[in-house]
Amino acid sequence: MEVFRCSPIRGFLLDITGVLYNSSPNTLGIAIPGSIDAIDRLYSESRVRFVSNESSESRGELARKLKKLGFNLKEEHIFTPAPVAIQYLKQHALKPHLLVHQGALKEFADMSKGEPNCVVMGDAECDFTYDAMNEAFRVLTALDDPLIITLGFGKFYQRVDGPCLDVGGFAKALQYATDARIVTFGKPAESFFLAAIKDMRLSKDEVVMIGDDIVSDIGGAMKVGIRAVQVRTGKWRYYDSSFLFCSVNKNSIVLVAQ
Amino acid sequence: MEVFRCSPIRGFLLDITGVLYNSSPNTLGIAIPGSIDAIDRLYSESRVRFVSNESSESRGELARKLKKLGFNLKEEHIFTPAPVAIQYLKQHALKPHLLVHQGALKEFADMSKGEPNCVVMGDAECDFTYDAMNEAFRVLTALDDPLIITLGFGKFYQRVDGPCLDVGGFAKALQYATDARIVTFGKPAESFFLAAIKDMRLSKDEVVMIGDDIVSDIGGAMKVGIRAVQVRTGKWRYYDSSFLFCSVNKNSIVLVAQ
Repeated sequence: MEVFRCSPIRGFLLDITGVLYNSSPNTLGIAIPGSIDAIDRLYSESRVRFVSNESSESRGELARKLKKLGFNLKEEHIFTPAPVAIQYLKQHALKPHLLVHQGALKEFADMSKGEPNCVVMGDAECDFTYDAMNEAFRVLTALDDPLIITLGFGKFYQRVDGPCLDVGGFAKALQYATDARIVTFGKPAESFFLAAIKDMRLSKDEVVMIGDDIVSDIGGAMKVGIRAVQVRTGKWRYYDSSFLFCSVNKNSIVLVAQ
Repeated sequence: MEVFRCSPIRGFLLDITGVLYNSSPNTLGIAIPGSIDAIDRLYSESRVRFVSNESSESRGELARKLKKLGFNLKEEHIFTPAPVAIQYLKQHALKPHLLVHQGALKEFADMSKGEPNCVVMGDAECDFTYDAMNEAFRVLTALDDPLIITLGFGKFYQRVDGPCLDVGGFAKALQYATDARIVTFGKPAESFFLAAIKDMRLSKDEVVMIGDDIVSDIGGAMKVGIRAVQVRTGKWRYYDSSFLFCSVNKNSIVLVAQ
């Protein structure tokens, strides 16, 4: 067993899907055992923010769903990619063709309509039909400098009925066919982690990222100098983890190598 | 204008979609003006084989459709990827999970059923639903050495209503999510061109490949030492062609640089 001594932990960044709960296509989903109590304890001892690549519903709907499942958390503590992407679209005078989940359309309600000059892709789930993919493809084909903006770039996520394809692969499909540029918002983008840390008025070395995705959560955080631990819930089982996370307290992270 | 003198041409390899006709989702499609006469002339002067990555219907159905459109050609002169892939599956004791067009299922009717150990992907068109992609993803996720076999690897093709996404991008999507190996049958695989040339009892330097796809048709043929010319029908307009094809006769290919 190895014990790593670290600088004091004053805040936590938490992924949501696969860490707090497993999503479901038709129901609220299921809270992961112990997670509701864990959030209460973290809130009582530290600052907490949630960094999720969720893009199949708005931040408000996600917050309401989590509250219904029993979580005590504040909507304003949840960071999702759509608001950041919308800010970028407005700054760059971009008019998006939306290839997002029906539930996410309302987030883009006040965007400019008309001739699109980019495609925005989220986790559209069943709205990733062939016709919808083709429509986005034709928009990109007509542009001189085709641009895809993605809300996250995940490979897959855990749903109660099993692992499910996330937006990343579908963006790769359109990129292959069009040679489009891709700009990603959400994890693992550094700015996304930093916005949540800034909101806690902490620095990178005072926080720990907790997630189930070795690429977006763990790799993304560690690449920008944030400590990270992978939980053994959600999709962790599909990865070859090199360590088993045991416990985190305010002064140390205890890890057991597998 | 540049004139390239080449060794005598004794045979032609022709792509079908975008060269002979433009396909349509609900009808026979439309013969490209002049193509029916051109095939008659080529048949009267040379040997001819058709090398198509078509995988949304069987070779027999494709031949019947082309005959209905007015083409005089022989079914046994059409080469498609599915029969070659099926031979490979049998040789390697592979049991496929099929992610192909409904119209192509019957080609695989005599394959082993049971626990799949690979995914076969063709141009599934509207059968590329999210659920179908997810089902294939879950098959691959459960394998120690995930393998995707593709019938062609095209970016897109021309349909009467516009350009349409081909199988390549969807295979890229599943590869991104699973790190699967990909084995491709059809163009641009060398063995595919060579099988058709062997069938004409000719050598590579005696034939010319004619197609609209700069990657699969033109690039694929030239990479293995076969002369190739790109027609200005089908999807040619989406590429930056460096030359304009003017005419081919038995002794020379005349090209005009753009």
